[in-house]
Amino acid sequence: MTERMTVPSWLDLPADSGFGIDNLPYGVFSTPGTAPRTGVAVGDSVLDLAAATGDDVHATGSLNAFLAQGPAAWQELRARLTGWLTDDGHRGDVEPHLVPRADVTMHLPVEVADYVDFYSSRHHAENLGRMFRPDSEPLTPNWTHLPIGYHGRAGTVAVSGTPVLRPSGQRKAPSDPAPTFGPSQRLDIEAEIGFVVGTPSELGRPVPLNAFPEHVFGVCLVNDWSARDLQSWEYVPLGPFLGKSFLTSVSPWVVPLAALEAARVSPPARDPRPLPYLDDTGAAPWGLDIAIEVRLNDEVVSRPPFDLMYWTPAQQLAHMTVNGASLRTGDLYASGTVSGPGKDQRGSFIELSWGGTEPVRLADGSTRTFLEDGDVVTLTATARGSGGSRISLGEVTGRIEPAAAP
Amino acid sequence: MTERMTVPSWLDLPADSGFGIDNLPYGVFSTPGTAPRTGVAVGDSVLDLAAATGDDVHATGSLNAFLAQGPAAWQELRARLTGWLTDDGHRGDVEPHLVPRADVTMHLPVEVADYVDFYSSRHHAENLGRMFRPDSEPLTPNWTHLPIGYHGRAGTVAVSGTPVLRPSGQRKAPSDPAPTFGPSQRLDIEAEIGFVVGTPSELGRPVPLNAFPEHVFGVCLVNDWSARDLQSWEYVPLGPFLGKSFLTSVSPWVVPLAALEAARVSPPARDPRPLPYLDDTGAAPWGLDIAIEVRLNDEVVSRPPFDLMYWTPAQQLAHMTVNGASLRTGDLYASGTVSGPGKDQRGSFIELSWGGTEPVRLADGSTRTFLEDGDVVTLTATARGSGGSRISLGEVTGRIEPAAAP
Repeated sequence: MTERMTVPSWLDLPADSGFGIDNLPYGVFSTPGTAPRTGVAVGDSVLDLAAATGDDVHATGSLNAFLAQGPAAWQELRARLTGWLTDDGHRGDVEPHLVPRADVTMHLPVEVADYVDFYSSRHHAENLGRMFRPDSEPLTPNWTHLPIGYHGRAGTVAVSGTPVLRPSGQRKAPSDPAPTFGPSQRLDIEAEIGFVVGTPSELGRPVPLNAFPEHVFGVCLVNDWSARDLQSWEYVPLGPFLGKSFLTSVSPWVVPLAALEAARVSPPARDPRPLPYLDDTGAAPWGLDIAIEVRLNDEVVSRPPFDLMYWTPAQQLAHMTVNGASLRTGDLYASGTVSGPGKDQRGSFIELSWGGTEPVRLADGSTRTFLEDGDVVTLTATARGSGGSRISLGEVTGRIEPAAAP
Repeated sequence: MTERMTVPSWLDLPADSGFGIDNLPYGVFSTPGTAPRTGVAVGDSVLDLAAATGDDVHATGSLNAFLAQGPAAWQELRARLTGWLTDDGHRGDVEPHLVPRADVTMHLPVEVADYVDFYSSRHHAENLGRMFRPDSEPLTPNWTHLPIGYHGRAGTVAVSGTPVLRPSGQRKAPSDPAPTFGPSQRLDIEAEIGFVVGTPSELGRPVPLNAFPEHVFGVCLVNDWSARDLQSWEYVPLGPFLGKSFLTSVSPWVVPLAALEAARVSPPARDPRPLPYLDDTGAAPWGLDIAIEVRLNDEVVSRPPFDLMYWTPAQQLAHMTVNGASLRTGDLYASGTVSGPGKDQRGSFIELSWGGTEPVRLADGSTRTFLEDGDVVTLTATARGSGGSRISLGEVTGRIEPAAAP
């Protein structure tokens, strides 16, 4: 007999649904008969919020207008939805607005304002440092003092399923006399968790650590596709550019922070102690125990653990705004590649294959260093929900397509 | 007797107006009685385009909707405006929609999609390289092969006149044992020219060199305010972040590329010859002879020459999209600091004062290394117009305000 949800619902959801009453993530969907609109995933269904609430804010084709309403509105709607889905008295009104998830097309949930990518996994930063700068300390001197980050291209953030056209560009190995132009030969993933800003902030007003849940609405999965050969030739001195800007894929469902209360954990101890604006000692922690799985062509190749991230999303937000930079509704920032200490916990192929020198062996006997045309990479993730259930972050997937003809 | 415009107009504009019939730049203005709308600067007036055309596309509060219409629409409207302003028969219809420029408030002209900053002045890159990496070659090996660039923060691009709140952040001099937190002590400018994208492009479709004028609508002035102490501590390995993200100021008037035909010049010779996607040998050149002036508290401290830029805006656009990254209406990309070979042609104070070691002496006997609270920096620029007139790019100005209390 299938175990049922700890929070009862007239929907009769199995406990392992991942999309139970304690999740209720938001996305933007369409059907052949309806324009893109906001929906909430529950079990195998999507609740059409535009129809169920009659509120135009959910009929705009992005979550931005709702996110801009701020935390009181987020909490109010979440409470209302919980009531609708658990109280049998609402069934008649609500059930007509449920659409099978199998029948919908998902869209980019958020009109992305600015996109920032951090670099907050110590294991990832050390691995990359060892490969890119073998003659130096693996971590740059600033790494333990601040969450290093940079701006990415917001206009090429796309929803899960968007084809990954292999990018072309300049590559130059250290032994090459000059750069050459052509398709990337070191196409890679970066398995990350993304944070979506709802409430904007004023120019000149830093957002302190404890204001994180007032500004950040929720969480998604991010695959920051990376062309390592383009990146390594271009990134000194101003950072990654074309090696990253061709596509960043996000999962279609944004899980509210409110659904992740039971997943909050203490981050790793920091040494040295951070400067006061980043010091979360004694504060309620914003480490999150999210278990990520990386699948290559349906085979799990890595299980990156998000709970080991050195810098939390609250610290990332405080850092990003400490110079007075303002936030806008729709800002997206990602954690940076999530890698654990184990070989099977690395969130990129450059790490899994150690720069291409240790090919990953797959179940069918083939091997991979970097991605080949036709490969499909899918990230999934789950976290503890209330009462022992699991919260699913859904998935972000993409298939590698051959480079365009020049 | 004041010389009159070579293109006659019933407006009777002086030849040195800078805002003659051959300029006609677009901006967004409001008056006490009207909401932000599109206007065109001519002489000392603004032509209210929303009122004069009756077209709602000019009543949206940003240029984006008009820019998205593409080059045929840009050309058609420019021809129509020229007719209105030169043919006396239109005077009665047009004159009521002229507003004195002194009476309007200017707004950010474009809703900025992505903001990219390049690094295309060889003199600037060499100067910075000598200061930041004294033990290496001043130019990194990639510099002569590609226009180095990175993404900046689109959400903190603001119109000229926006106060420049001194940012705080982490600073660490090489001799300091650990970073400290506080207001930037090395607040600087970067004098740049910006390019505004009108026509979007498809994901996966590079924009070739010769498609530059189909996608880029026009040009503005950019001051990319920079906190050099924050930047130098944070920028390895992922590039500038908080040292740049607190504010980028732009001039309110976007000068159409069509107004700069007479300013087109050949860029400097490149060695080595660029890879084919960047090779403009034999093509109509997109070097632009724009003369910039940098004023500190009303005193000219530098005259950076844009015609010496190594990489042109057409090459920057081709590079930015060669990996398949798409363009959106409202994308803004800037040239990078414009510096010439002369000491009085440097587009930043870190260069003018050589990292703070050679203070700039001002007319009143005082000196500057970096900016002090209360300082006002203003960039202006002009270019050749048709028939010997001057095209003004207007100005971008900002006053340094003290850091916010922690």
